[in-house]
Amino acid sequence: MTSLNLVAEPGMHSIVLTREFNAPREVVFKAFTDATLVPKWWGPRYLTTKVDAMDVKFGGVWRYVQRDADGNEYAFRGVYHQITAPERLVFTFEFEGMPGHVLLETVMLEDRGDKTLVTDTSIFQSIEDRDGMIASGMEGGAADSWDRFAELLATL
Amino acid sequence: MTSLNLVAEPGMHSIVLTREFNAPREVVFKAFTDATLVPKWWGPRYLTTKVDAMDVKFGGVWRYVQRDADGNEYAFRGVYHQITAPERLVFTFEFEGMPGHVLLETVMLEDRGDKTLVTDTSIFQSIEDRDGMIASGMEGGAADSWDRFAELLATL
Repeated sequence: MTSLNLVAEPGMHSIVLTREFNAPREVVFKAFTDATLVPKWWGPRYLTTKVDAMDVKFGGVWRYVQRDADGNEYAFRGVYHQITAPERLVFTFEFEGMPGHVLLETVMLEDRGDKTLVTDTSIFQSIEDRDGMIASGMEGGAADSWDRFAELLATL
Repeated sequence: MTSLNLVAEPGMHSIVLTREFNAPREVVFKAFTDATLVPKWWGPRYLTTKVDAMDVKFGGVWRYVQRDADGNEYAFRGVYHQITAPERLVFTFEFEGMPGHVLLETVMLEDRGDKTLVTDTSIFQSIEDRDGMIASGMEGGAADSWDRFAELLATL
């Protein structure tokens, strides 16, 4: 099984995640954009995720609510700018617990036959915001989430 | 009259524009968010600008169409992520003539009594996109546009 690669060069605004998945691009795109599938992979395993809104189009809003075993909730939201099936998604992202810190996320799907290379680039409003995201432990959460994504793809 | 300051450090994703305007923050915010005012300042003087869409709210879409003396049209569009009156706007930006190159723009208004400091930070998906924007001559267009903005503020 392949694993997540994370690049966050010092002093830059970006975090770049890449991973190859064992599924054709159309299937990967569906897993990214189907509201019934998102709860099966989005976020780390110890949290449940509910899709509160997911209107996958230019100007559409998305909002996911995570919940831990104690009932604490963590909500995330954004707006879609570009949806080009099956190759590209561009949207904003904000953790409601830290409002006013917005990033622009671009997910690119590259066709490799039976496999798909996913490159997920997040660009932050400031380098401090980018460093804060790294410090929050996002790498572990992302690795877990992308493992779940790979497991889901194997069932589709 | 103050002038535009542009910072685009080599090898970075960002362009930061700053300028102080001789108007209170509420007036500056109105000039940024009122669809009837945008054609009076947005873009360089030699182009006319029509507001095709401007739904100033989270998830709202904006689209402006510029026209030159020969009738050529140039359209720009994006979605609003954050509108916090009178201090902050966050939205995406794309030139339709070069689709797929999206940036995240954050406009911050700082209250200085009768004056307002505006900081406009654009974060690009790649450093190449950022450099392309600089190479397109955006600085001259922005300087002209912000001069027009200052002239408009004086009439409000």
